[in-house]
Amino acid sequence: MDGSSFGKLFKITTWGESHGSGVGVVVEGCPAGLPLKESDIQKDLDRRRTGQSKVTTTRKEGDKIQIMSGIFKGITTGTPIAMWVNNKDADSSKYESIKHLYRPGHADYTYDMKYGFRDYRGGGRASARETVGRVAAGAIAKKLLARDNITITGFTRQIGHHTAETINFKEIEKNIVRCPDAKTAKKMVTAIMQARKNGDSLGGVVEVVARGVPAGLGEPVFDKLDADLAKAVMSIPAVKGVEIGAGFQTAAMTGSECNDIIVMKNKKR
Amino acid sequence: MDGSSFGKLFKITTWGESHGSGVGVVVEGCPAGLPLKESDIQKDLDRRRTGQSKVTTTRKEGDKIQIMSGIFKGITTGTPIAMWVNNKDADSSKYESIKHLYRPGHADYTYDMKYGFRDYRGGGRASARETVGRVAAGAIAKKLLARDNITITGFTRQIGHHTAETINFKEIEKNIVRCPDAKTAKKMVTAIMQARKNGDSLGGVVEVVARGVPAGLGEPVFDKLDADLAKAVMSIPAVKGVEIGAGFQTAAMTGSECNDIIVMKNKKR
Amino acid sequence: MDGSSFGKLFKITTWGESHGSGVGVVVEGCPAGLPLKESDIQKDLDRRRTGQSKVTTTRKEGDKIQIMSGIFKGITTGTPIAMWVNNKDADSSKYESIKHLYRPGHADYTYDMKYGFRDYRGGGRASARETVGRVAAGAIAKKLLARDNITITGFTRQIGHHTAETINFKEIEKNIVRCPDAKTAKKMVTAIMQARKNGDSLGGVVEVVARGVPAGLGEPVFDKLDADLAKAVMSIPAVKGVEIGAGFQTAAMTGSECNDIIVMKNKKR
Amino acid sequence: MDGSSFGKLFKITTWGESHGSGVGVVVEGCPAGLPLKESDIQKDLDRRRTGQSKVTTTRKEGDKIQIMSGIFKGITTGTPIAMWVNNKDADSSKYESIKHLYRPGHADYTYDMKYGFRDYRGGGRASARETVGRVAAGAIAKKLLARDNITITGFTRQIGHHTAETINFKEIEKNIVRCPDAKTAKKMVTAIMQARKNGDSLGGVVEVVARGVPAGLGEPVFDKLDADLAKAVMSIPAVKGVEIGAGFQTAAMTGSECNDIIVMKNKKR
Repeated sequence: MDGSSFGKLFKITTWGESHGSGVGVVVEGCPAGLPLKESDIQKDLDRRRTGQSKVTTTRKEGDKIQIMSGIFKGITTGTPIAMWVNNKDADSSKYESIKHLYRPGHADYTYDMKYGFRDYRGGGRASARETVGRVAAGAIAKKLLARDNITITGFTRQIGHHTAETINFKEIEKNIVRCPDAKTAKKMVTAIMQARKNGDSLGGVVEVVARGVPAGLGEPVFDKLDADLAKAVMSIPAVKGVEIGAGFQTAAMTGSECNDIIVMKNKKR
Repeated sequence: MDGSSFGKLFKITTWGESHGSGVGVVVEGCPAGLPLKESDIQKDLDRRRTGQSKVTTTRKEGDKIQIMSGIFKGITTGTPIAMWVNNKDADSSKYESIKHLYRPGHADYTYDMKYGFRDYRGGGRASARETVGRVAAGAIAKKLLARDNITITGFTRQIGHHTAETINFKEIEKNIVRCPDAKTAKKMVTAIMQARKNGDSLGGVVEVVARGVPAGLGEPVFDKLDADLAKAVMSIPAVKGVEIGAGFQTAAMTGSECNDIIVMKNKKR
Repeated sequence: MDGSSFGKLFKITTWGESHGSGVGVVVEGCPAGLPLKESDIQKDLDRRRTGQSKVTTTRKEGDKIQIMSGIFKGITTGTPIAMWVNNKDADSSKYESIKHLYRPGHADYTYDMKYGFRDYRGGGRASARETVGRVAAGAIAKKLLARDNITITGFTRQIGHHTAETINFKEIEKNIVRCPDAKTAKKMVTAIMQARKNGDSLGGVVEVVARGVPAGLGEPVFDKLDADLAKAVMSIPAVKGVEIGAGFQTAAMTGSECNDIIVMKNKKR
Repeated sequence: MDGSSFGKLFKITTWGESHGSGVGVVVEGCPAGLPLKESDIQKDLDRRRTGQSKVTTTRKEGDKIQIMSGIFKGITTGTPIAMWVNNKDADSSKYESIKHLYRPGHADYTYDMKYGFRDYRGGGRASARETVGRVAAGAIAKKLLARDNITITGFTRQIGHHTAETINFKEIEKNIVRCPDAKTAKKMVTAIMQARKNGDSLGGVVEVVARGVPAGLGEPVFDKLDADLAKAVMSIPAVKGVEIGAGFQTAAMTGSECNDIIVMKNKKR
């Protein structure tokens, strides 16, 4: 059955495999009247791109977004916005040798059990390359939200045993691990390079801050904002946990410690 | 909100406008293991193509399908199948002169009211060119159904005042109006050419026969097979009515005339 | 899989069988702030009720609606509105004798093929009694629409060979067949009573008129208003055809005959 | 819009408020042929019930499930299963005094912002009493899964600063906090009673173990099993975090530490 769509009012449907022709997305429900050009999306794809620094996988993705529909004279029309990126540097020859092997931590075994066989080139559909479509759709979403002064900022909180201790948003784009704490950033880079040298990899924690969000988004009881966010995040390859606010720390708190007192601000709550 | 998707287990999402970069479709839920190549789809697109005979609109669409994902070594993988067709012969200059006019029987006015403005080139998203994606997805569906000996045959029952009186499936592809009655086919062609000479057009009725369908498809009560078919058909531009079986003729029948007696066949009902 | 839900922004989920405990509906997405009481819904259920005149089936349904949730101090809260009607006069003993028979024109055979067995009492879930939930939800929808001066009026256009020739909305509720043409109404009643005497039944056509509808409702391309209406209507038991506007008559028209010229009214189109 | 439904093949729609007539659920997609009686569901509702021991809220819910549809002769028919529980001990008088107050950690403020007003009796729809419908539907799901030898076991891992150190499934139902470690269970009870004495409450962690699950459930890429589970869990009131497997501990692991080696068992992987 289906499973590659997410959202209702603003719905995205992604397609594509790691080593197929390309990867893409169809965005339904983007309101008409938003100025949108490829460079609005390209900048987030560039930020996502592997091969841009020494800490990422070595695949060089010169991902160039193409908008195929939904724009007329530089403005969204309210109809589906199709976008895609050609797959370059998709050398699948190196996967021939492991096509009968199941890699732990990958979906190889699961895909074989589910579908009877699998596209073993670079993980096929299970590759994190699928997130190209999410990033492209997210760039549109961010531009929409910006009209209402809602901002979304993501950064690296933790890599291995190194955790950012100070949060300075201005630092984020200044280092290649996008850590808001310059000192910790350096340690992270060193740790990654060391792990790579050992033929290993490291885990981490990503934190996302949304500001300017009005009260009342999401729909009770299943489509609460928290619940939809948890689903979206947990569907990204390799994610094993999601927290909102204080998260698991609340488990060891009393109610009186955990609750945020509601305060008035400018005579508005 | 969304609106360009149809289906659940086998879901299609179409995108594209008449004079944009192209038109396409993403098919979710196609089972893994179906041999599929572009020529399987191309033959139905060729059959759909305008400009192939004197009775269609004059736009020459040399539509060539491209499968972008979901196939590995000639076999479907169970993941989304993205397909698209480049828009050629998309001369939009002739639409400049009518961009401030609302054509009756078109969605011009509705789109302006809904979205605030519209892509006026060739009807934009409301163009029947959108059905390219449906035909491409339908070609896959037909190939799937054929494995269970289910066949789908469509033909022209009526054009203007001319109605096919005999149904000979072998005649359908032999004439340019795809009428199963050779004699009526000739009259239909003449009527269309005459209407065109007058700067006019003609209505018609298309009939679709599905054979080999097992009992029990569809889900009560809203997603009955009849209901989903009615929706799919009514969503095609210019369609104004849908009938199942004897359709509106049943209105003037008694229950005893209308009911089909249930009979045993090979000791099976 | 699921199939008893319809709609997105205003979604209804019906449940219940002809001879179970009752029939009901859950309405999601009704906006907060609508005054709503059981009598708002009861009047449409009374209008639907069988056994209210000599032309309907003889089952006496004293259907009394109960609102179970979604209302606080007489006002909708924005949360799901659950409503149900107790099944009375549900004498299922008379169905014992036909439990091994498949009635033509009923879903008996289909349900057995789909589910392996069936609730044979009064058609079970396939009974038109399921529409109690639709009528109850529709009563809420009508009250919502009335706030925007949108009205929905339904009437009987045809019974057997008798078709209303004049449409006088004031006549509709004055006769037991709800025909807007008093003269034809009498003929319809006579025809029904004659058919019943013969142990038979008659077909018919119902017409629904919506006024005050703003342009732009529905979502292209699959969820067009026409398409969703067609699905909803075709999902009602025994419906075999749906037309919008001139419907099948357009098949024999030219484009110039069929198109409605767009006119200005109060300087608004 | 809607938001009270979850699932596709097996879909549940819950309704009801803390102090309305009752709370309930409609289950769509339960296969036909499952023997099901009210006592199958009652036992899980009894386990959920508040007021059953000194550590829960004091409201006495003598919740008695009623199945309203979808069962014939003790067997599911494949049609929607509606169930509900009458609200007893719903004394809302004590909420009158706080109807103008926003409680931190509750949805009071959010509901007012979203809907313009709220049902302030016991949290209305935002009350954890809504989970009655989930538990009832879950009882059916568990019975279905048991046919395939899939079992689901939930227990309390942590309360405040007390964490179960040994996991003995047989202990779970033997203590009132449902902790699989008898020694820790006692500490948890003491801690809860102490917090209550202080007019306070404690956080905690619940762990759920599913055994016998076949590979390949869920649909890539958004409807992965992990993602749907995360959404379901995060939509429960007061939940602030979800982990799968080693969860956040993986952040500080290397890939080689984190990966589970794939092993053969009985010559099957």
